[in-house]
Formats: sequence, C-alpha cells, structure tokens
Amino acid sequence: MSLSIRAATNADRDAVWHIMEPVIRAGETYALPRDMDREEALAHWFSPDRTVFVAEAADGVAGTYYIRANRPGPGSHVANAGFMVAAGRGGQGIGQALCEHALSTAQASGFQAMQFNFVVAVNSRAVRLWQRMGFDIVGRVPNAFLHPIHGMSDALVMHRRL
Amino acid sequence: MSLSIRAATNADRDAVWHIMEPVIRAGETYALPRDMDREEALAHWFSPDRTVFVAEAADGVAGTYYIRANRPGPGSHVANAGFMVAAGRGGQGIGQALCEHALSTAQASGFQAMQFNFVVAVNSRAVRLWQRMGFDIVGRVPNAFLHPIHGMSDALVMHRRL
Repeated sequence: MSLSIRAATNADRDAVWHIMEPVIRAGETYALPRDMDREEALAHWFSPDRTVFVAEAADGVAGTYYIRANRPGPGSHVANAGFMVAAGRGGQGIGQALCEHALSTAQASGFQAMQFNFVVAVNSRAVRLWQRMGFDIVGRVPNAFLHPIHGMSDALVMHRRL
Repeated sequence: MSLSIRAATNADRDAVWHIMEPVIRAGETYALPRDMDREEALAHWFSPDRTVFVAEAADGVAGTYYIRANRPGPGSHVANAGFMVAAGRGGQGIGQALCEHALSTAQASGFQAMQFNFVVAVNSRAVRLWQRMGFDIVGRVPNAFLHPIHGMSDALVMHRRL
C-alpha cells in the first residue's frame, strides 16, 4: 500500500469527517461527545493551534492526524498529536505511518518531546503501537474514561523524547 | 482571616487579572505565555467551559479558582481545577480554602474525581498541599516545563476520587 501524507486542505474536510464520525460515534478511544456533529468535530480537529495532515491512499484519504504544542509558554517545547484511521483500515500500518510522520514533523519543528495526554488503557492496540514507536507510559489516571463496553477504563499519559 | 468564596462576576475581572498578572509574568507555575495580556488571560481563565470562583477577604479578592470537566464526553465525570492566590498572600491557607471549596463544588456537581494535569514538580509547596488534600501523583512527565530558575522541570499529573 502506498500512502502519501500531506498537510490537509479545506478540500479534505469531508474525508476527515468521514474518518472522524465512526470514531466519535463508537466512543471507545476519544474523550469526545458521541453526539458531536460535523461542524463541532471539524472545528475541534482543525482548531487554530493545530496543524492537520491526511494520509492519502490510492482509493482516498485513509487517515488523519493533528500536531500542536501540548501546552503554551513554558510547556511549548512538547508536542501533542492525535490520530484517526479510516473505518475498516485498521491493522494496515496506517497509524504507524501517521505516527512516524508526526514524529518527524515534530522534530523538524523543534519540539523536544511528544506527549499523549489521554490514551484509553483498554485500547491495547494503540498502547502497543505507541510503545513500539518509543513511547513510555509515564502516567495512569484511574477510571478516567467511561468505555461503552468495558465501563470505567484508566487513561494513560505516554511520552517520547525526540 | 475570614474568606468568603463565591462565584466570580464581571465586576471581579480587574481583581482576577491583578492576581493572574504576577503569576503569569513569573512563569514558574503555569504553562501560559509569560507575555499574555489582560484580555488573553481573562479569556483563558473565564473560558466558556469553566466556572470561576473568587475568595474575598476583608481587604479584597485574595484568590481565584476555576472548575470544569477535564474532558468532554466519556471523560466528563472527572473535574479539573486551577488555582491562583494573590501575590503576597501565600502561606495563609487561601490555596487550601480554595481547594476545599473546589472539591465540594465538584462533588455537588456530580463529578467522580478531580485531576490536575500539569503540576510543576519543583513547585513543592503546591505538590505538598495537593497531597495533604488527598491527591495522589499518578503521572510524571519528564522535562515538560521550562522553569525560569530551575530549568527543565517535570510536570505531575495528580488525582483524587470524590
């Protein structure tokens, strides 16, 4: 599979929403309201402090990520990023390709580390992927996420130097 | 010292800025831009997802805190709060009084826990206070905060059930 990862444009908004909607509705991985509508979701993903990228496969946009400073001012040397892969495209290496791209982008932008603030602990595929990508679990908040199937789940803070 | 803690009104904005300005300029405890101006700072502290309180002493407003859901949707059962005490009023129990009020407010609002996302580890007075108030350190992000005196400092994630 050949993926081209590039900065998102306004023309990608439909494709990004098409990726976001099932993730948000499922409510299993992001602490976002499950009934969030298109405009709210896109305003969130494309909020002004973020830069958004999309991964384009032969048959269309297969994933998206954003990158931003995790905190302003004295915390602005640490990046944060969030990732979503299109429904039915899991397990194809798209998340890993997006993360590799995000790490390169963060490094090129001068960030010294990347932090994920809220990785749902029962999302073990994601946790394992981030660990393979060099992230350590540096925090565990008990019962921070109400999972629709597993009930209360811990949320992990994960971190990697760049 | 008698303190009255009450919801902030628009009439408190000057007093809140008077508390915020030295905290922001010092850059020792909050990951906020040190050059933030009055309007940016007040927009941040009074942002729409927050409820702001002030502690009124005999001689004026001596402290302020905000409370909010730390995350929306499946994370909205956990509260977050932030506290600032007026310059020159440290060590008088104002922070503790604000925190006790925030914990009561959070509990009355139905939150199940309170989380602090970014406690500067070298701010040992705050860390000790939160520990006395029942918070545990559940995460430690290495070098997440550039302290103007101590240089790179860890940031702590602290958590307490309600």
